[in-house]
Amino acid sequence: MNGAYLDHASATPVRKEVLDAMLPYFSERFANPSTVYDMGSKIRLVVEEQRAKVANLIGAKADEIIFTSSGAEANNLAIKGVAFARQKKGKRIIVSSIEHHSVLNSARFLERFDFEVTFLPVDGYGVVDPNRLVRAITPETILVSIGHANNEIGTIQSMVELAAVCKEKGIIFHTDAVASVGNTSVDVNEMNVDLLSLSGPSLGAPKGTAALYFNKKVRLMPLIQGGIQENGRRAGTENVPGIVGLGKAAELAKRELPEKMSHVRKLRDRLVKGIFEQVEKVSFTGHPEKRLPGHASFCFEAIEGEALIFMLAQAGIYTNTGSACASKALKTSPVLGAIGIRADLAQGSTVFTIDAGNTVEEIDHVLEKLPAIVDRLRSFSPIWGKEIPEYEEDVCT
Amino acid sequence: MNGAYLDHASATPVRKEVLDAMLPYFSERFANPSTVYDMGSKIRLVVEEQRAKVANLIGAKADEIIFTSSGAEANNLAIKGVAFARQKKGKRIIVSSIEHHSVLNSARFLERFDFEVTFLPVDGYGVVDPNRLVRAITPETILVSIGHANNEIGTIQSMVELAAVCKEKGIIFHTDAVASVGNTSVDVNEMNVDLLSLSGPSLGAPKGTAALYFNKKVRLMPLIQGGIQENGRRAGTENVPGIVGLGKAAELAKRELPEKMSHVRKLRDRLVKGIFEQVEKVSFTGHPEKRLPGHASFCFEAIEGEALIFMLAQAGIYTNTGSACASKALKTSPVLGAIGIRADLAQGSTVFTIDAGNTVEEIDHVLEKLPAIVDRLRSFSPIWGKEIPEYEEDVCT
Repeated sequence: MNGAYLDHASATPVRKEVLDAMLPYFSERFANPSTVYDMGSKIRLVVEEQRAKVANLIGAKADEIIFTSSGAEANNLAIKGVAFARQKKGKRIIVSSIEHHSVLNSARFLERFDFEVTFLPVDGYGVVDPNRLVRAITPETILVSIGHANNEIGTIQSMVELAAVCKEKGIIFHTDAVASVGNTSVDVNEMNVDLLSLSGPSLGAPKGTAALYFNKKVRLMPLIQGGIQENGRRAGTENVPGIVGLGKAAELAKRELPEKMSHVRKLRDRLVKGIFEQVEKVSFTGHPEKRLPGHASFCFEAIEGEALIFMLAQAGIYTNTGSACASKALKTSPVLGAIGIRADLAQGSTVFTIDAGNTVEEIDHVLEKLPAIVDRLRSFSPIWGKEIPEYEEDVCT
Repeated sequence: MNGAYLDHASATPVRKEVLDAMLPYFSERFANPSTVYDMGSKIRLVVEEQRAKVANLIGAKADEIIFTSSGAEANNLAIKGVAFARQKKGKRIIVSSIEHHSVLNSARFLERFDFEVTFLPVDGYGVVDPNRLVRAITPETILVSIGHANNEIGTIQSMVELAAVCKEKGIIFHTDAVASVGNTSVDVNEMNVDLLSLSGPSLGAPKGTAALYFNKKVRLMPLIQGGIQENGRRAGTENVPGIVGLGKAAELAKRELPEKMSHVRKLRDRLVKGIFEQVEKVSFTGHPEKRLPGHASFCFEAIEGEALIFMLAQAGIYTNTGSACASKALKTSPVLGAIGIRADLAQGSTVFTIDAGNTVEEIDHVLEKLPAIVDRLRSFSPIWGKEIPEYEEDVCT
């Protein structure tokens, strides 16, 4: 059967070169890097080599990288770690209203400890206005966290401008770059960020691998406390095979990123053009240009996104509604709510995330199957062709 | 060269059956278990099967298992998670003074939030007296955490008695069983504990795998917040290959544990007997009977443990000083201090941890090499043969 896996934001297969690099570290080179004897100290060196490779991908230094077990952990460490370390300077933090749940829920956790959190609105494209950030800052603000790219609508923020606002005010600036590292170019110095979360699976490294970049001037309370691994910033025996996989994937991504970006952009543009040509009453979500090159997101009118996902899967096409929240509860995703998408239209949210391995044939397979599936679903719909009242408040949290 | 790897408490090679089970989940069956389509929901089922296997190893139910990335993370989640969820009931917690750093440092973290922590003393064998626990409890005590077995001195606590004290007073009881699960029998119902941490590497699963058992009546604030993975108790995409490895290792451990215990006990006893026959001025640390079957720990008089580790490694023998703290700072380990070992003697701490794959020949290799190495080191020692003053206070923290 023909097919097309276009849900790379949810999961990406581990690259062969990455798995090959990892394999010796499960059963042969298995020593604990914290041991003092030769078997262990050799593994310590291997871990440090990977740290340098991950740093190199984002223009950082090796000792600015903390390995974590997921992007969610990196985000929790950044937000809670800075807040708890700096709370004597102030207890206000700012996050955008379209952040990943791991940022939003870390911020909400801090409210229990008398932090005040400002959830910054975005415009209809999901863009945070730097002037709005300026106005939200108070003397008590110690931390701002705004994601580089949004995984649901693909929009990329103006990081340089946002970081400049924070730098001028002496405020720590974190960005969740889980959706962007490996998919678009990321350089922590150009961006001028203090902390940046990235995740291995976006690079073809295995699940359970991720990292937090941190400027060494930033004080950070560890999230996982215990031994002195990761320079005392993250306890627990290092996941050596995973770290080797992340290092290899970062090395490959550094080399191949320009070519990958050009390839996935072409496929994405072909997909978008084809869908608009063949399907009526469909809108594109997120920013039309300032977006991840392999990311296309739509809302199909009078379609229930989850039904579309199921029917596409029957045709071998794998996509996502873009929000686990929306898919579980038949409620509007907070991100789509934040960019002002009508609740009924947001139900039809469908996200395609394209990777280097995808082909023109796969995109054409989608363009062959999708229009008929949309027609079929609309033929069952009680609201297709009817007038829809204005925006309904039905945002899930 | 002959050799003997006897540092299984630090790291254990991944078992072949375990790695074989994991391999399909890196690049073939790679979907995200949170996705709604068939590729993902099949992976969701696989994850739940592993949860059942891990539960089965310790007599728990599948929905009482939370997968984490390390034993340290499981301990942090248990201690901080219970403390933050129950703080309205009281802000006192009790831990033993020989807990792993991930327990001790989690408890110390809570002191910043106005919790009071009692560090319970142990006797000369490292045993916590249940009567002492009774006396330490106050009406504000909400949590007790006492490790099942100590990784440095091998001592196993009287869990049933300790748990009974907590149950009678309505206090949540957590045990760090990272050193014991896979090395001795562990049943959460027999023990009557509310939470129990275990780690994959002890079972021949890869680094980066671990779990927390929790009684579902126990409220727990997540450590890593974000999505609704692990029933909302631990966010972040599941480390599927690692979880499959942990499940397979748990299944094998359940089947093979009695045989392994008998095998490693014989080797351990042979090692202990041989060392006492051939080396003078050596003392055994921890409890002589209530201890992990594959665990032997010693203090060699007038020996610097790290030098002994290095010289043994040159003979292909891998052991540990038992404490990263001691090895880094030439200070007495807190565990050895807590059991009243003289500071100078504690310098000579050496820990052997034996696994199913070790052989009589390996033990005999140690017994052939060790005495001459000890003699050689003592011949360099400025204190060998001299009178040592009484216990010196020099405990690192």
